[in-house]
Amino acid sequence: MKLGPVDTSQSPYARHRTLALSDVRLDGGFWSTWQRTNHKVSLRHGFDQLERFGNFNNLKLAAGKGEGEYRRPVFMDSDVYKWLEAIGYELAWNPDPELVEMADHAIKLVEGAQGEDGYLNSYWDVVEPDRRWADLDHGHELYCAGHLFQAAVAYYRATGDRRLLDVSCRFADYIDSVFGPGKRIGTPGHPEVEMALVELFRETGERRYLDLALYFVDQRGHGLLQHSRFGGGAYYQDHIPVREASTVEGHAVRQLYLTTGVADLYLETGEGALLDALMRQWRNMTSRKLFITGGLGSQHAGEAFGEPYELPNERCYCETCAQIASIMWNWRMLLITGERRFADLLERTLYNGFLSGVSLDGRCYFYVNPLMSRGADPLLGRKHIVRPEWHGCACCPPNVMRTLSSLQHYLATTDESGVQIHQYAPSTIRAAVGNGEAVLKIETNYPWEGTVKLTVQESRGDWTLKLRIPNWSAQASWEVNGRAEAIDVQDGYATLRRSWAVGDTIVLTLAMQPTLIEAHPRVDPTRSSVAIERGPLVYCFEGVDQEQGVDILDAQIDVSQPLGEAWRSDLLGGIVTVEADGFSADPVGWGDSLYRPLGHGAAPARQSTRLTAIPYYAWANRGANPMRVWIPRSDR
Amino acid sequence: MKLGPVDTSQSPYARHRTLALSDVRLDGGFWSTWQRTNHKVSLRHGFDQLERFGNFNNLKLAAGKGEGEYRRPVFMDSDVYKWLEAIGYELAWNPDPELVEMADHAIKLVEGAQGEDGYLNSYWDVVEPDRRWADLDHGHELYCAGHLFQAAVAYYRATGDRRLLDVSCRFADYIDSVFGPGKRIGTPGHPEVEMALVELFRETGERRYLDLALYFVDQRGHGLLQHSRFGGGAYYQDHIPVREASTVEGHAVRQLYLTTGVADLYLETGEGALLDALMRQWRNMTSRKLFITGGLGSQHAGEAFGEPYELPNERCYCETCAQIASIMWNWRMLLITGERRFADLLERTLYNGFLSGVSLDGRCYFYVNPLMSRGADPLLGRKHIVRPEWHGCACCPPNVMRTLSSLQHYLATTDESGVQIHQYAPSTIRAAVGNGEAVLKIETNYPWEGTVKLTVQESRGDWTLKLRIPNWSAQASWEVNGRAEAIDVQDGYATLRRSWAVGDTIVLTLAMQPTLIEAHPRVDPTRSSVAIERGPLVYCFEGVDQEQGVDILDAQIDVSQPLGEAWRSDLLGGIVTVEADGFSADPVGWGDSLYRPLGHGAAPARQSTRLTAIPYYAWANRGANPMRVWIPRSDR
Repeated sequence: MKLGPVDTSQSPYARHRTLALSDVRLDGGFWSTWQRTNHKVSLRHGFDQLERFGNFNNLKLAAGKGEGEYRRPVFMDSDVYKWLEAIGYELAWNPDPELVEMADHAIKLVEGAQGEDGYLNSYWDVVEPDRRWADLDHGHELYCAGHLFQAAVAYYRATGDRRLLDVSCRFADYIDSVFGPGKRIGTPGHPEVEMALVELFRETGERRYLDLALYFVDQRGHGLLQHSRFGGGAYYQDHIPVREASTVEGHAVRQLYLTTGVADLYLETGEGALLDALMRQWRNMTSRKLFITGGLGSQHAGEAFGEPYELPNERCYCETCAQIASIMWNWRMLLITGERRFADLLERTLYNGFLSGVSLDGRCYFYVNPLMSRGADPLLGRKHIVRPEWHGCACCPPNVMRTLSSLQHYLATTDESGVQIHQYAPSTIRAAVGNGEAVLKIETNYPWEGTVKLTVQESRGDWTLKLRIPNWSAQASWEVNGRAEAIDVQDGYATLRRSWAVGDTIVLTLAMQPTLIEAHPRVDPTRSSVAIERGPLVYCFEGVDQEQGVDILDAQIDVSQPLGEAWRSDLLGGIVTVEADGFSADPVGWGDSLYRPLGHGAAPARQSTRLTAIPYYAWANRGANPMRVWIPRSDR
Repeated sequence: MKLGPVDTSQSPYARHRTLALSDVRLDGGFWSTWQRTNHKVSLRHGFDQLERFGNFNNLKLAAGKGEGEYRRPVFMDSDVYKWLEAIGYELAWNPDPELVEMADHAIKLVEGAQGEDGYLNSYWDVVEPDRRWADLDHGHELYCAGHLFQAAVAYYRATGDRRLLDVSCRFADYIDSVFGPGKRIGTPGHPEVEMALVELFRETGERRYLDLALYFVDQRGHGLLQHSRFGGGAYYQDHIPVREASTVEGHAVRQLYLTTGVADLYLETGEGALLDALMRQWRNMTSRKLFITGGLGSQHAGEAFGEPYELPNERCYCETCAQIASIMWNWRMLLITGERRFADLLERTLYNGFLSGVSLDGRCYFYVNPLMSRGADPLLGRKHIVRPEWHGCACCPPNVMRTLSSLQHYLATTDESGVQIHQYAPSTIRAAVGNGEAVLKIETNYPWEGTVKLTVQESRGDWTLKLRIPNWSAQASWEVNGRAEAIDVQDGYATLRRSWAVGDTIVLTLAMQPTLIEAHPRVDPTRSSVAIERGPLVYCFEGVDQEQGVDILDAQIDVSQPLGEAWRSDLLGGIVTVEADGFSADPVGWGDSLYRPLGHGAAPARQSTRLTAIPYYAWANRGANPMRVWIPRSDR
């Protein structure tokens, strides 16, 4: 049994238990294609880039080998660790000697870079050896440590290879000898080590790691971190004690790595004040600061959550890592509560704001994921309009890799009553039920079609099956063994308890049609505009798909007409497009004016056109061209 | 004759000649009140703050006196210079021994800080004495030099005191010995020295200063400046040679100080390629990147011009200094061309985006001037919602002071044909006409009323009077000596040539009523919204003025109903308020949703209300409370 990122099998406050990566197999379909690309292209691409950008060499320098200068930023080690973590998950279900060899290369470098005392960080070792822990605000030592621990746990769970785990325990023990009550006071400027220490505790049973995670969380909100250029302590969530927080603030990735770690702590400690704060923050985020894509972070300055309802289209931030953090957090909230809303947001994020972070070919990565783009500017070289192969600050690419490698982790859980299916993909799921085991086969053409067929392949005794009814599905029905039955919905899940027999089938049908979405009236840039969703997918209009002469930046949609859809196997790896009647509204009457008296000047000349939308995740795979998720309504 | 900021009396390519500050007197009214506050409060406040923040001490340190450490940022000297420049303009028309004494204190510090070789910069002298000119990108040595030169010229013109001018010439000569063909290659990361060198040339007749300004301009666009964190050379307009530019890009203040300097160069050299570039850039700015307030700069990151039509309400930048730079640039464009559009934008900027930079009491200053605010947040301490007394980076306050002290500079000009009145204020204007002189008295309650009465108090011979018809005025009429006459409009100016006699009167009536304004459809955050203008003033809705229970952030305006107005002598120093019918649209039906299918869920419950708007410049003078310039239309 090879467990994935989170093991809640022993967590006293988990409502759901996670399944092993080796117990859930994707059988083709949408995500399987992405995993194959990740395996064949991305993980190897990552190795090459870590070599090319000097991450490996930094570790060599720390080992007293290597040549040349240290290559920044200070958290270069963490890219290696996230990539190793991805390899770990991959090897849990997809043996590959070449990946083992690559990982072995990296693991040896990591081992070599560790100090006698257990300390491990190539930047501080090489560049500022006398200043360990001197800059907890921005030094990223504990952040890198956390990624090391996660990689170590992943790799050990998959392979049984203890090397990284031993390195991690030595380092964690050293950190524990430095920080804590009666020792050094401090907390990391960039959360990450918290969730990692909890997982290291889960794997090793070493309680000190859990205590240390709690210690770091407890230190926040007392002004330890104050050297931010970006508006004080809120930048790293040091403006308020964790238990008192009601909002998500500051650097989005930092905030969401923190809430993830706090959720992990709750899973082990059951401390109500922690969960209460998380619930308040989740509500604040989803009701005030969430992009329709699941994207998070409204401000470039400080990579920050913005003000309530501050959700710009073009100038949003929506860092790929923030969406990954949201996936991690929502997963833990689901494990804690069993409530559908967390699985819903996880799904929205996964299919949209997360997946847009990587190109279809698996080689290129967005850091920032805008909801609107003007296309290229030959003079200025606009950013965030095509995905680069790598980044100087390359946190996102290996973060995407580890998420894709472990994707089956998020499909299903068990509890004492039975099995819960949270995300739909063609798959085979093996799960403990009662005193035995069940094997469930799921067939679906999700996310293109809303039909999900589940077949019981093995089963023993009575148990309860729960299938999520996504919040986007206006209608859901099912047939049990070929007969339509009413659905009993509990916590948002279609729920059925019975003594399942081999060959039993459930066919769940979710209404999946293109739907126009409007945003809260306080959101300025989406006023009088709509977006399109179909099932879990958010759509966008990309210039290249429109009729000749139509500038998508001047287009309007006719919301009085029905939306159409079409399966296009030839396009972007195979997608369902959505078509809409609309107008090309040439603002030529405006001339050079930006402002004019209301009612003066002609309305823009309009020409009817048929607009074509594609899934948002697939944009920017055909060169730089204009794109928009939100489009003005023609009646406005 | 005490000339103001720009002396075009000898400029071969100036269409208009500027008047001396001592030849234009404000006789009460709107701007006179602001000047009085500036004189009585701000200039003294500035002195105190320069002492308190260490600017004076920095100069002492450079002189080998002073105590303690250098206080950053690196351009602290420039705040002293801008303040001295303001004193200079003030003394040109408003003798004040106390100000002379304060200035004398500062001038002695400046003199003491200059090196033997003429070099003068307290930061580099004190902190990095061996690294002069080592960081042209961000070192601000030439920027500070420019502000010194402007202060020196202003102070000398007003007082005849040569001390600063001598310091400046020594420094300029030294700079000229360092930079230029065959010497050091370089150009400043922050333009400013260019316009200053041209003015120093105008005052001294020293041609080398003009050549040096041209040299710095010529160096741009060849990749000399490359160390920006903010997206490469465009940050400091080094992405393209000056003559090839067609757009305004990067750091807004840098860009507009540059265009101002280039306009000064054109005034002296008449080089068509420079003017062509300026014309293209002005068109780009005004048709793509201008806020309705005259504000400039859409992005906090890099304090930058954004993308075309990227004009956010709350998250705009609109640095007070950018608006001042725009005033300086537009003034020079007007001097070059005589075209109304430049005076129009100057007026828009002056009354709105510039004036919002200072509080009514003259003690507090905005750096960022948003078009929307959510009011205070006790937890996070939102910025840019109330004006602080000073800033760590205090470029704006003394920049406001020097603009207010020299305000009469922008009212009128002459040319060989006669006199042009560009801005209206109660004033007495003495101007050379033909071989003699004319004295014109202007009476008006501008900007509250659109009637302007001009009386000829002295005159000689035939000359042409030109009165600007502002572009906001839908109707204009005039009476000449009590008789209605048709207006002959040339270049946007009501034009009348005659042999003016003492006692001749013109009464110009400009239609001044509240007007709803809409923005270009490509501007996202203003879609289906309107703003209100009345005369030169842009209005805003501030929470404190609304009926109880109305949250201005949820309000809508009924554009089918006429707007009302009222003179309120008790409010904010006396203002005309604008009232509108509208609705308080409580989005309670949205619950915690940010997004929902179109047509699902109830429309927000609406209650009729009477909305009150105040001039934008006057906002945030009654504590932190919500504000918006753009308000959604209720029919949308």
